[in-house]
Amino acid sequence: MKGRKVISWFSCQISPPQPDKALSELFQKLNTMKNLLIIGAGRSATVLITYILEQAALHNFFVTIADADIALAQKKVDGHPNGRAIWLDASKHNDRRDIIQRHDVVVSLLPPQMHLEVAQDCIVLGKHMVTASYVSKQVFRLGDEARQRALVFMNEIGLDPGIDHMSAMQRIHQIRAKGGKITAFYSYTGGLVAPESDDNPWHYKFSWNPRNVVLAGQGTAQFLENGKLKYIPYRRLFRQYNLVDIPGMGEWEVYANRDSMLYRDAYGLKNIKTLFRGTIRHKGFCDAWNALVRIGLTDATFPIVDSEKLTYHDLMEAFLGISQHTGSVKDRIAKVIEVEPDSEVMKNLEWLGLFSKRRIKVKDATPSLILENLLLEKWALQPKDKDMVIMQHVFEYEINKKKHKTTSTLVMKGNNGTDTAMSRLVGLPLGIFVKLLITGQVSPTGVNIPTMPEVYEPVMKELEDYGVKFVDIDV
Amino acid sequence: MKGRKVISWFSCQISPPQPDKALSELFQKLNTMKNLLIIGAGRSATVLITYILEQAALHNFFVTIADADIALAQKKVDGHPNGRAIWLDASKHNDRRDIIQRHDVVVSLLPPQMHLEVAQDCIVLGKHMVTASYVSKQVFRLGDEARQRALVFMNEIGLDPGIDHMSAMQRIHQIRAKGGKITAFYSYTGGLVAPESDDNPWHYKFSWNPRNVVLAGQGTAQFLENGKLKYIPYRRLFRQYNLVDIPGMGEWEVYANRDSMLYRDAYGLKNIKTLFRGTIRHKGFCDAWNALVRIGLTDATFPIVDSEKLTYHDLMEAFLGISQHTGSVKDRIAKVIEVEPDSEVMKNLEWLGLFSKRRIKVKDATPSLILENLLLEKWALQPKDKDMVIMQHVFEYEINKKKHKTTSTLVMKGNNGTDTAMSRLVGLPLGIFVKLLITGQVSPTGVNIPTMPEVYEPVMKELEDYGVKFVDIDV
Repeated sequence: MKGRKVISWFSCQISPPQPDKALSELFQKLNTMKNLLIIGAGRSATVLITYILEQAALHNFFVTIADADIALAQKKVDGHPNGRAIWLDASKHNDRRDIIQRHDVVVSLLPPQMHLEVAQDCIVLGKHMVTASYVSKQVFRLGDEARQRALVFMNEIGLDPGIDHMSAMQRIHQIRAKGGKITAFYSYTGGLVAPESDDNPWHYKFSWNPRNVVLAGQGTAQFLENGKLKYIPYRRLFRQYNLVDIPGMGEWEVYANRDSMLYRDAYGLKNIKTLFRGTIRHKGFCDAWNALVRIGLTDATFPIVDSEKLTYHDLMEAFLGISQHTGSVKDRIAKVIEVEPDSEVMKNLEWLGLFSKRRIKVKDATPSLILENLLLEKWALQPKDKDMVIMQHVFEYEINKKKHKTTSTLVMKGNNGTDTAMSRLVGLPLGIFVKLLITGQVSPTGVNIPTMPEVYEPVMKELEDYGVKFVDIDV
Repeated sequence: MKGRKVISWFSCQISPPQPDKALSELFQKLNTMKNLLIIGAGRSATVLITYILEQAALHNFFVTIADADIALAQKKVDGHPNGRAIWLDASKHNDRRDIIQRHDVVVSLLPPQMHLEVAQDCIVLGKHMVTASYVSKQVFRLGDEARQRALVFMNEIGLDPGIDHMSAMQRIHQIRAKGGKITAFYSYTGGLVAPESDDNPWHYKFSWNPRNVVLAGQGTAQFLENGKLKYIPYRRLFRQYNLVDIPGMGEWEVYANRDSMLYRDAYGLKNIKTLFRGTIRHKGFCDAWNALVRIGLTDATFPIVDSEKLTYHDLMEAFLGISQHTGSVKDRIAKVIEVEPDSEVMKNLEWLGLFSKRRIKVKDATPSLILENLLLEKWALQPKDKDMVIMQHVFEYEINKKKHKTTSTLVMKGNNGTDTAMSRLVGLPLGIFVKLLITGQVSPTGVNIPTMPEVYEPVMKELEDYGVKFVDIDV
């Protein structure tokens, strides 16, 4: 009996599936064309999918869009002859591996913590993999295995990270080719609202993940200035901003972005004296955001008990702590955060409705989640709104002991609240690289970010066709 | 062969050990007397061990002191006839269980995260357990199992937590017995330096774990004020302190201590309007400590690269961030933390040597570790120094609609840098409870903290013999 059971189980596994007619046609396609798998069909996938389906028709490859919400995937494919939508719960190992097995290149748009599992599948099954996410330590460690198997694992190929790497490295290599020695590198990026759609006193609307905006900067920012490491703790981050002039766009605030030092090695800038990466915000934003931080509204570590029973006014009162001051909650908040009651900062807080008697909608939520929900409403990009992305690099370098300074600036605006500059700048580089990879035009094996000319040259070149162009000025 | 192996292994396990003469005598003792096991013989164990060995002689029980440093354990036993020292690496499960098996009551002085494993052993082996640490959720969940087996798992029976619970509950029960309804409860504790040994501008020296002092308050403090929950984030904690008058000791600063709300249920204060727990510090301390927090020196989340190659002056410069200001590092720090260059706060920072060209001694250390090492040197309790513990409860209550207010205050000073008030106040309640338990005078089964009269009455009574006396004043 025991032996029989084993045999029967085994034979069941190896018996071929019985495809229906449509599936049979599909298998034929899968067998003759190159096959691309995109896991995740959410909002951030739209530009990528539109671009890649066009390219699939031109270059004769086939695209599978896999998502746990198959209707969403179907909507994105929209009956395109080179695409199909399939249902996939990516957390189910066997299903995921079965699907990956049938493709040549896998793009993971899953949440970053899930990339490792997909990467491990790709190693075992011998597939290339592309993501727009930061390389985790665990994925980085797969580098040797990927290289040995001649597999391409490309990451950080969206906007930031992505276009920042490619545009910066292009210029770093150009400066080096001229015999230049780079002494300072500053790089700033902002996902913003276009001036013509800027109609709120914060001068900000969401064009990307609101949670990242609310939690931005927690930890300690690190950078290099005149050969010395510098640290700015979160509590001072939005106070210690710089003013930066963007050609044609006026002055903007820039605060330090995470650990700039990571880019010293990644960009081969070993002897650089100053290395600073920052986030661009409209003038006035940092002071107002700092007020939210000081009140405690960006804290994600504890729940406000029964938050759904409180008004925003109650919440503000709860953050006042010991009643040392008298007066209205608004006046006491002004005292606690050390600003004038009639200051711009207080007007911004009031505009958000933080002193209103409106009820909070989320239950037992952390302060940061309550804030995120409020901002989602107040800072929503409306259907006719245009977003704007600004990216600027500043290079200081010496050629034959003569000092030079070049700024390289990208300003791009979206068309409306759906067709945003942000979504194009994230989706297009990813799509272009995937096209180049699947059509055999690039093959940087191992775990990489796009710092090599083989990758950034063709990607940046094609991006120009989509209006993505940096303007370089020697200053 | 297979069968034989199993039998041989099994028979090996059940063959009795061959004790030598000394061990044989010891086993006899262990078989006829009650046996107490204390795991951990470090500095915090001294008062407990001295007390419990005296009591062991009086009440005829036997004490085993187990430590990975057997010389330390032997020194503490000091040849006492009712004690012995043994070697134990408490992380080794089998060794630990073998030892626990031979005792009736186990006191764990291990780091808090190790209590759970000891508690699980005690459940399996049917032993009582006592700690001075906070009850973790995991230990709390063992409550039913402990009760079913009639086991006593007593925790939080040191000073704070410990004497705070017992002294507060004693008075809460007294007020209730008089028909009083408690409307507000404030409780403050400080481990301080005695005025006669206070010779530094911070008016502070370490009498307990320095790390806890450096990291104190990280997270968000929570308390109840006039029926409303209040939150103070870390960034404002040392700014929003209260001034509190301690009878005979003048005014002190008090900042909010963690989550006061936990005590509402623990103390049965369901309908209380105000509930606040705080930490006592000398006047001026909070402003100066806030400066360290603002600079970023209490951050434990990232290492300062090559910290051992920097001077304190370099470190201060690294925390200046972007050079917006000119002038000396000291003047720029003053600007960044928004205090006058000649203020008391800046004098305190300077006294610590934070602007000196002395080299930092710890390698790749976090800012908080660098600070801890510096303070260990600067705030060391000298051999002739006396420490001081202050604990004050304030009760506001109504009897027949008449309002009352009572303060209950303990002030205790140490004798010198070793025989500290702190060590006595942590070790004695633990020792007294263990004595009561092993001599069968108390048996509060289940996982508990000492809030029941059965426990606090005899412990507080015996503490008076050691000079631990609260003075109650109706104000």
